[in-house]
Amino acid sequence: MFSTMQDVPLTVSRILEHGSTVHGSSQVITWTGGEPHRRSFAEVGARAARLAHALRGLGVEREDRVATLLWNNAEHLEAYLAVPSMGAVLHTLNLRLAPEQLVWIANHAEDRVLLVNGSLLPLLAPLLPQLPLLEHLVVTGPGDRSVLDGIRPTVHDYEEFLAGHPEHYDWPELDEREAAILCYTSGTTGDPKGVLYSHRSLYLHCLQVNTTEAFALGSGDLALPVVPMFHVSAWGMPHAAFMAGASLLMPDRFLQPAPLAEMIEKLRPTIGAAVPTIWQGLLAELDAHGRDVACLRTVIIGGSACPPALMRGFEERHGIRVVHAWGMTETSPLGTVAHPPAGVTGDEEWRYRTTQGRFPASVEARLIGPDGARLPWDGASAGELEVRGPWIAGAYYGGADGDPQRPDDKFSPDGWLRTGDVGTITPDGYLTLTDRAKDVIKSGGEWISSLELENHLMAHPDVAEAAVIAVPDDKWGERPLATVVLADGATTGHDELRAFLAERIARWQLPERWARIASVPKTSVGKFDKKLLRQRYADGELDVTHLG
Amino acid sequence: MFSTMQDVPLTVSRILEHGSTVHGSSQVITWTGGEPHRRSFAEVGARAARLAHALRGLGVEREDRVATLLWNNAEHLEAYLAVPSMGAVLHTLNLRLAPEQLVWIANHAEDRVLLVNGSLLPLLAPLLPQLPLLEHLVVTGPGDRSVLDGIRPTVHDYEEFLAGHPEHYDWPELDEREAAILCYTSGTTGDPKGVLYSHRSLYLHCLQVNTTEAFALGSGDLALPVVPMFHVSAWGMPHAAFMAGASLLMPDRFLQPAPLAEMIEKLRPTIGAAVPTIWQGLLAELDAHGRDVACLRTVIIGGSACPPALMRGFEERHGIRVVHAWGMTETSPLGTVAHPPAGVTGDEEWRYRTTQGRFPASVEARLIGPDGARLPWDGASAGELEVRGPWIAGAYYGGADGDPQRPDDKFSPDGWLRTGDVGTITPDGYLTLTDRAKDVIKSGGEWISSLELENHLMAHPDVAEAAVIAVPDDKWGERPLATVVLADGATTGHDELRAFLAERIARWQLPERWARIASVPKTSVGKFDKKLLRQRYADGELDVTHLG
Repeated sequence: MFSTMQDVPLTVSRILEHGSTVHGSSQVITWTGGEPHRRSFAEVGARAARLAHALRGLGVEREDRVATLLWNNAEHLEAYLAVPSMGAVLHTLNLRLAPEQLVWIANHAEDRVLLVNGSLLPLLAPLLPQLPLLEHLVVTGPGDRSVLDGIRPTVHDYEEFLAGHPEHYDWPELDEREAAILCYTSGTTGDPKGVLYSHRSLYLHCLQVNTTEAFALGSGDLALPVVPMFHVSAWGMPHAAFMAGASLLMPDRFLQPAPLAEMIEKLRPTIGAAVPTIWQGLLAELDAHGRDVACLRTVIIGGSACPPALMRGFEERHGIRVVHAWGMTETSPLGTVAHPPAGVTGDEEWRYRTTQGRFPASVEARLIGPDGARLPWDGASAGELEVRGPWIAGAYYGGADGDPQRPDDKFSPDGWLRTGDVGTITPDGYLTLTDRAKDVIKSGGEWISSLELENHLMAHPDVAEAAVIAVPDDKWGERPLATVVLADGATTGHDELRAFLAERIARWQLPERWARIASVPKTSVGKFDKKLLRQRYADGELDVTHLG
Repeated sequence: MFSTMQDVPLTVSRILEHGSTVHGSSQVITWTGGEPHRRSFAEVGARAARLAHALRGLGVEREDRVATLLWNNAEHLEAYLAVPSMGAVLHTLNLRLAPEQLVWIANHAEDRVLLVNGSLLPLLAPLLPQLPLLEHLVVTGPGDRSVLDGIRPTVHDYEEFLAGHPEHYDWPELDEREAAILCYTSGTTGDPKGVLYSHRSLYLHCLQVNTTEAFALGSGDLALPVVPMFHVSAWGMPHAAFMAGASLLMPDRFLQPAPLAEMIEKLRPTIGAAVPTIWQGLLAELDAHGRDVACLRTVIIGGSACPPALMRGFEERHGIRVVHAWGMTETSPLGTVAHPPAGVTGDEEWRYRTTQGRFPASVEARLIGPDGARLPWDGASAGELEVRGPWIAGAYYGGADGDPQRPDDKFSPDGWLRTGDVGTITPDGYLTLTDRAKDVIKSGGEWISSLELENHLMAHPDVAEAAVIAVPDDKWGERPLATVVLADGATTGHDELRAFLAERIARWQLPERWARIASVPKTSVGKFDKKLLRQRYADGELDVTHLG
């Protein structure tokens, strides 16, 4: 029996219409280095309508991809609202990717129009000859346009592009499952993969972001998304703020500690969102110059684990509560948020706050062990995290390796996302990640965390770096191999390091195989390249000692 | 182009599974008069599974209606979770209705099973012979069962009914548009009408309730739904609390000022929801006995307009912030919540707080004027409020007057709900209701609020009561007729009252027709019966004086 409630789709155009009317006086403030630039939500809404008319004028149709290569600013928000609302697909390009990746992604997405900040033209111009599908370039803000002279796509100035178009657009009534935003993962191996968010997934994610369990945005907030809008929609903050009437402080390209500290002190945002590296730099700046930033009630930190010292530093010295969160491009990204349970204090509170956090109702989670069985939420059993929910990807755009028919092992046969993360979950739903699934050592039906062994080894004063990889073993399937870079001048033996480790981990996890190396090979983004280490081992290039 | 996000339905079973695991240690505390009864969310979840098994054992199938005649308590919450999750439809019966209405509704809904509090058996027993479709009665808590002796439906004791059944149930994967809860409007005229909420509408409504714009429930809250669970799902509070992990304080049948004050002081809820009449009694109790109730950060008041004196009394004398909200059975009910915009203070803040409040993104609103045209949001133009959104009814259960084919004038041709309320909306989306559409006077293409004229008249010291109704007028279509009940001993003339009114309203709104009456006729729920007054006028029973 079906209900008799109205069948109204959840769409970005509703967020746009709501924010620009009911919250029309809320502000988008873009930092410029000089006088901040202010625009009301009503103006942003009117300009979004103009942008949609202008894009229609170029022939942009439903489903067409309109790309952005933009910093966090009011213009980017206008594209966030206009492009999905008109039924086209917003494709946010990550301006930090290597040129060949940018080219690959823009061609794979078949971007027809690209909105770009003038300051990024020197980055973009050399790539244009390799983007044959791109028809139009719309340039925002200052920047030397002469680098585009004689280059193929038609160039428009953003303000001229909008001028003269009506301030209202008759947004089409879309199916909420239609595509709204396309974002590619910045995978360290293989080609990037596109995640295609729907209107429905974005809308539901916004509602969740605005609950007290997550960011609790309200019309009294000034929200500072330091995390880029090309990085999983800035964790949903711009759309959620527009929905709740929370004003936005957009840092544009000023992501260095000094301007961040200045904009926080001057404009007094109440909540921020950032990755640890940016915030680490900010802490040093604040400690050195003692600016007043206590306006920030909360900063959400995600993207990678946040060092507890960073969390304590902000809280104890600057009155800012750092809240840990976990997610990935495939999860929109809100997976968990580490608000502790009510009433816990002291060390217990910190234990909760340094986990990845707790799942909301819309993110169902399960842990799958080495043998494929579902593991209990006992805070001890480690398995690969699989998640399911209305804002979790069910496939990649274009399918696995570009083939929509090919089964993709990133998804379980019953449709759950395999996160590739290994961890534990407490009975009250707090997630702690311990390793990446591809790096975990599968030994006799149990998993050994390479990360845990490495952290213990690197805590030894004589160890500069340590990488632990899985190597084949006749009896156990796999066993850990510890590769160690000693500190300058140190001569510590493998047996001493093994004894050091034995005091800290279970006996069956102790590596038998040890190798000294000159340095740990790194990927282009600075992570340990364990794939290469495993290859070197297979090729017999490592000098392995057997102990125990 | 469809997105590649997972297609996961929004269902009550997800709320149930989430709340009883991630928030398994949150509590449902039911007031008993003596020692409060406590049950964890994990226990509630396990008992909900048992209840579903037991109902399946009775032959309850998908779509079958399972009714409740229960106070707010843990057992009612178990039914709230179990019945929709198993695919059946929960029908909450309003125990305050007249017996003939209860019978009509239970038969119209075709209730097969009824869960009833033992304390309500004396009310129910005499009605049972008129409920031929009812097969099973499940009785919870204490109460004399002997009144059921020899009566037809099979009687079960709730605890025995659950005993022995498994604590897990393999909840079916439902379409989110399937029916979950059925609730009838307590309309003052005509037969009651059923509103059939879907899993989707309930889930979305829960997410909204938990945002800062609405109730902002979080796992640190203890929520007190004083508004009954048979009244529009207690405004979504029980389901929303279960989703957010907010503990619940259930008042059961103890809705009198003294026990309410005692449970608040002892158990320290942080947020409450109630209708003004109940809260008015509580204020008098608090003023008289000075209990410490400052634990309550917020009380949401809805159902009818809250007197500003009541709001100020709670805030100034007891530290409780009263927040006004508006909704109706057809709107789930969250329509507006009167949180003022950020930064406003003093009289301006009070002006916002005494409106009905601001719309959330999921409730689209428009005002339709006397001539059917859409009116601006200028804070002055009064029209009938129409709303649209995913938790707004699109039709009544069974259709208009029981005929699914018949067009229902409660819904506009494009599907919006006609609320029957007349009011204004400010440019920033705050609603102020001024009258019911059926009572408004349509004079020459403009509307005159009967309520406004009555309020002014009743402010005159010599007027005990005044009711203003529309009467036919050859020139203007309709004009107001003021019927007045003078205070004991007063002899004030119509011309004096008209002059009093002339100082307070626009000239064209001044009634020409006046009649003195002995008392204003009332409906069964104590409201002015204007239908009857209009009939008396039509029948020439009123002694009408023409002035001006």
